[in-house]
Amino acid sequence: MRKYHGNRHSGVLRRTRRIRDSNGRSNQAARRSYISGSQDDPLLPCHTISRDIENVSNTTSLPVTFADVTRAAETLRGVAHRTPVLTSTTANAIAGAQLFFKCENFQRVGAFKFRGAYNAVSRLTDDQRKRGVITFSSGNHAQAMALAGQLLGVPITVIMPANAPALKLAATRGYGASVVMYDPKADNREEVTATIVAERKLTLIPPYDHPDVIAGQGTATLELIDEIGPLDALVVPVGGGGLLSGSAIAATERSPGCAIYGVEPEAGNDGQRSFRSGEIVNIPVPDTIADGARTQHIGTLVLPILRALVHDIVTVSDDQLRTQMRFFMERMKIVVEPTGCLGAAAVMQHAIDLKGKRVGIILTGGNVDPATFCECMSAAGSLS
Amino acid sequence: MRKYHGNRHSGVLRRTRRIRDSNGRSNQAARRSYISGSQDDPLLPCHTISRDIENVSNTTSLPVTFADVTRAAETLRGVAHRTPVLTSTTANAIAGAQLFFKCENFQRVGAFKFRGAYNAVSRLTDDQRKRGVITFSSGNHAQAMALAGQLLGVPITVIMPANAPALKLAATRGYGASVVMYDPKADNREEVTATIVAERKLTLIPPYDHPDVIAGQGTATLELIDEIGPLDALVVPVGGGGLLSGSAIAATERSPGCAIYGVEPEAGNDGQRSFRSGEIVNIPVPDTIADGARTQHIGTLVLPILRALVHDIVTVSDDQLRTQMRFFMERMKIVVEPTGCLGAAAVMQHAIDLKGKRVGIILTGGNVDPATFCECMSAAGSLS
Repeated sequence: MRKYHGNRHSGVLRRTRRIRDSNGRSNQAARRSYISGSQDDPLLPCHTISRDIENVSNTTSLPVTFADVTRAAETLRGVAHRTPVLTSTTANAIAGAQLFFKCENFQRVGAFKFRGAYNAVSRLTDDQRKRGVITFSSGNHAQAMALAGQLLGVPITVIMPANAPALKLAATRGYGASVVMYDPKADNREEVTATIVAERKLTLIPPYDHPDVIAGQGTATLELIDEIGPLDALVVPVGGGGLLSGSAIAATERSPGCAIYGVEPEAGNDGQRSFRSGEIVNIPVPDTIADGARTQHIGTLVLPILRALVHDIVTVSDDQLRTQMRFFMERMKIVVEPTGCLGAAAVMQHAIDLKGKRVGIILTGGNVDPATFCECMSAAGSLS
Repeated sequence: MRKYHGNRHSGVLRRTRRIRDSNGRSNQAARRSYISGSQDDPLLPCHTISRDIENVSNTTSLPVTFADVTRAAETLRGVAHRTPVLTSTTANAIAGAQLFFKCENFQRVGAFKFRGAYNAVSRLTDDQRKRGVITFSSGNHAQAMALAGQLLGVPITVIMPANAPALKLAATRGYGASVVMYDPKADNREEVTATIVAERKLTLIPPYDHPDVIAGQGTATLELIDEIGPLDALVVPVGGGGLLSGSAIAATERSPGCAIYGVEPEAGNDGQRSFRSGEIVNIPVPDTIADGARTQHIGTLVLPILRALVHDIVTVSDDQLRTQMRFFMERMKIVVEPTGCLGAAAVMQHAIDLKGKRVGIILTGGNVDPATFCECMSAAGSLS
């Protein structure tokens, strides 16, 4: 495990970016008002930039570095899809900004998760590969690990709750992984995993709190900026924070001055709270249609990266996600799963004010079954 | 109007391509059996190549030439989207072939129609532009003409049936076009159009039977082949045949030896019958979910191009279209309207045998409202 040598309070992070919030205050002021939270200098609404970034001339002092991301990009070349970047004049008109949608819903297994999974499995020693890998996920990471294992000839075991959707179970097994079920009411997932790890000497690759997973996820942003040039802002969905931290590393180095935002569902704002407080906040499983963001806490490797590089984490409602899904279906002809809509909903429904900016948005995945998709369509409002 | 100087019987078209059908016969034999239609040499099933191509070393003798297509591509540069080409290992496995999907559902106004419309309007004289343009369409061509007119500052009048969907009416007016309604039960569309043309001295640009429309539609195939290299086969939806004829011209010149196929809905196989008989066949408005292929006949400019360059026109059922829409939603995360699925359904559900080939498929559009889309999802079968 890489050691983390710096943080925003250590003096390593020095440079201050001055970005003005929507009231014209510099974010130095914005940060002060956020930190104080007093009545005459109240907490800013979430669409302002709530903190400034001290430093970051490079990411070498963080637990994952830019060199890790570029190395992951080499590993993924010709294996992961180089997904297209879509634009829409209608979306630009609604947002009042120039939007670039990185379509990871077109990635292998239908989500960005393949990047981190493949990168992590490919970094194992021969001995680790032979013994095999274990992970826990009932979502896109499970399928991503299963496919990575299949491609690299590494046995993959996935711990899944007994109530996981049959479709996801079948897809994971379809890629050749072994699935171990546990009863989410009776058993503790971590304990089940630890027992199997000890018994079978497997290597654990968790869904987000792993340096090679984080580095792999950062490659989507690398491709985005290499294709369309520097950005004023990058907006990224947050579950456990693996994608946001990897993206932040890539954007900070490849597009200096780019403001980086995370977006969570309202019902599961643990990442926002952890980011703002500096301590990892644990919450019960949140009730949201964004199933990829039903995480109870962000990662311990993730937090220092977010604190060093990210400008803010904001939230959107499930209704805003449905509206966004419908916009993508009707106007851009793409299927984006609820979690994948987090970033776009925040920008197009003005949870973040990015008027006049060049904005990269990661659409993280498209894995939603037709029935759920159509429920969202019929319940959705309209943007246009 | 360009004059057409050659046809397959004139001796201008000489070169014979020898492609073997699924029974191992050369298509010279296949053609004989098709033409004779006798009991001991019966009509071949539609998935075989039913006719050979005599000539075509170039397309200069046809009513629309390759030079017209390349000139259209220049006109459209920076105006039309250069749409992405998607691939899918799952789709390849199902088809047993290497498939390249040209995503015109991502084109402006959501369909390839923008290419032909913009090209045709841009070729008008100053005087014609000032007086304005008229067209008839209740579908994608209406919106495409309206947007082309808006971009080029040309007044557009669209003749629409009074029962056209409110959404399409609103979209057409939204781009600034004037809409003239007629009663499809009481009035004849051609007569309504002719009266307005005479009264207002407008220039008629019909949806497909126009050389500049055909040339514009050919640019999608030009981009496809320029991006992914030569093809063994190209498969294209057919309504009035504007896209198929333009595509055939581009593919014949850019990828010599490429076999070109059109695909129609079973209920509206007038194009297949016209292509095979050499005479334009008129049919009542066909009852199919492929609303872009509810044409009653192909164009008079279209027929000689198809006869010279196309290998066959095959058909698929509405159920096959629903299955294909669901595949695109579930596995490729894209929204394709029923008509846009014609080509893909023919290849992936084996109406054409293209095993082991490199196959280009045009996905023509994505304009389907969420309610219709979801009806198709719930009624659809599964491919995978």
